[in-house]
Amino acid sequence: MNKDTIYKPLLAITMGDPAGIGPEIAVKAFADTHIHNICRPVLIGHIPSIEKILKITGIKLSVNEIGSIKEYNNSQNVLNIINIKSTNNDIEYGKVSAFAGEIAFKAVKHAIDLALKKEVDGTVTGPINKESINKAGYKFSGHTEIYAHYTGTEKYAMLLVDDDFRVIHVTTHVSLRKAIDMIKKERILEVIQLLNKGLIDIGIKQPRIGVAGLNPHAGDGGLFGDEEIKEIKPAILEAQKIGINAEGPLSPDTLFSLASGGKFDGCVAMYHDQGHIPFKLLGFTWDKERNTMKSVRGVNITLGLPIIRTSVDHGTAFEIAGKGIASSDALINAIEYAVKLCKN
Amino acid sequence: MNKDTIYKPLLAITMGDPAGIGPEIAVKAFADTHIHNICRPVLIGHIPSIEKILKITGIKLSVNEIGSIKEYNNSQNVLNIINIKSTNNDIEYGKVSAFAGEIAFKAVKHAIDLALKKEVDGTVTGPINKESINKAGYKFSGHTEIYAHYTGTEKYAMLLVDDDFRVIHVTTHVSLRKAIDMIKKERILEVIQLLNKGLIDIGIKQPRIGVAGLNPHAGDGGLFGDEEIKEIKPAILEAQKIGINAEGPLSPDTLFSLASGGKFDGCVAMYHDQGHIPFKLLGFTWDKERNTMKSVRGVNITLGLPIIRTSVDHGTAFEIAGKGIASSDALINAIEYAVKLCKN
Repeated sequence: MNKDTIYKPLLAITMGDPAGIGPEIAVKAFADTHIHNICRPVLIGHIPSIEKILKITGIKLSVNEIGSIKEYNNSQNVLNIINIKSTNNDIEYGKVSAFAGEIAFKAVKHAIDLALKKEVDGTVTGPINKESINKAGYKFSGHTEIYAHYTGTEKYAMLLVDDDFRVIHVTTHVSLRKAIDMIKKERILEVIQLLNKGLIDIGIKQPRIGVAGLNPHAGDGGLFGDEEIKEIKPAILEAQKIGINAEGPLSPDTLFSLASGGKFDGCVAMYHDQGHIPFKLLGFTWDKERNTMKSVRGVNITLGLPIIRTSVDHGTAFEIAGKGIASSDALINAIEYAVKLCKN
Repeated sequence: MNKDTIYKPLLAITMGDPAGIGPEIAVKAFADTHIHNICRPVLIGHIPSIEKILKITGIKLSVNEIGSIKEYNNSQNVLNIINIKSTNNDIEYGKVSAFAGEIAFKAVKHAIDLALKKEVDGTVTGPINKESINKAGYKFSGHTEIYAHYTGTEKYAMLLVDDDFRVIHVTTHVSLRKAIDMIKKERILEVIQLLNKGLIDIGIKQPRIGVAGLNPHAGDGGLFGDEEIKEIKPAILEAQKIGINAEGPLSPDTLFSLASGGKFDGCVAMYHDQGHIPFKLLGFTWDKERNTMKSVRGVNITLGLPIIRTSVDHGTAFEIAGKGIASSDALINAIEYAVKLCKN
């Protein structure tokens, strides 16, 4: 037996917003034998919300409330959970509320604390609702900002992963105009380095990195903008100097075709939609008949943190919450990636 | 017999740059029985380049030089061609040159003239090389600009089509910064109208149109930029007022997933890469083993012109020119779309 077969990482998995599909995808993942074969999952969530969805879905799991990780029960049909108390024990599906936001936020905070104290090996987050979090008084725009804040991290970036298609972002939740202003050599180099390390951490020995330009045709030699010449190319040259196999700036409209065909292990996108458009086009499938998304794949990994954090990339899907039809594929994939990161 | 089975539109098809794959995809399309069943194609190109590629590919077609459309020979194995003379009758593959640019440009100009004189019903263009065109002294950035110039058109837009996935662009070959400045209500409304008419012209009775936002999450209610509030939404409301079924602004990273799943007949993209990234991701497939693009689908239609023009959306592919391995799928698809436009 090698180390891989002996050691199963302990993972803190947050339930996400109780009004969304978070509780459902969590119990579906906890009911999956494969998950228990690769890790020891502990849910951080709200017991009444979990019991409610277990009833709806008919999933048979024995809910085991634990006060600390030491009380972990190793049986496969046991759902170990650290309870986040609330005065509202019947959260309505599909509704923004401070109650839901309070539970969702506290679960995330608790998971971060466990990881910082090294009581768990890593964390995996379910989908939260920004509005509910804000209503509960926590002024964050998302998980990444919460993690950065409570771990005191300044240099971090979001990596999106769907099978072998991986995209990191130089800028994210800012206007496109502001994003352009933030395209600076130093930040681009930082992101290339974060990606290179991240790819090595998930087990890729010599990562091949493709860097996008900002402008159409990557500026066409300066004809349509000069950010490629002034900022992006110099960052790539610096990265190459320190031994990183980075290429570019490449025309944004071909880089992602190349990467999805296997030419690169990871892509560097300059702004939110440059990376999210191809990522969601590959991973999200619209179901015309049912008027809803049929499949939502995709994992989000925060690189640069002192602790491990992976997440589903989809949202709370309020419109189908509590209906028993949500897919736990993305959460299972996020757990698998957390396990990979724990082992490398 | 109805009109459709009787009338085959006369199409002027330009050969594109003789140093690229244009001549090869042209002879492959002309050798396709299906093409002769739906239209009467006339090639505008360079006879020596055509004879050279016929020899390389082993395709048997009888080259019939015609001085005017009246001399068209209706046999299936005849390639009717209007010759563009050159002093260089052995153009080298894969090289930028004024000779190649001269031939490519003159073919396009001739096709436009034929369409303006109504001697043909529509035009279809093969891939040209901007550098060669410029070296030959013609200062245009591409086909669309040539067509707009010689037809005196001011309001036009490029529509990309790949099966049922269709994207039109509010802005194209400008820097991203400049594109943002050009996101104005009047232009957006103009493009929505061009798309609506274009979709009707290709046979869609009540087009469903999805309009993208400019910023991440379509600005998230003004949090990440206000172009959605100030320019895009007002344009959509105007479009709805005049009876167009337009929806949005939608989050750019979900619109294209929705459209590729069949929720919309056409999408409005705000800038070049917003539309080109999903379009090429769907239509272009990288072949890792051969280190080249395996498949390149996609048709480009210029809307707003007084004449019909469709085109392949791929480039000259200098790296595989003259090798006999280029696919004529996109050209055949462009011809099919020209036929549809001629009939509606």
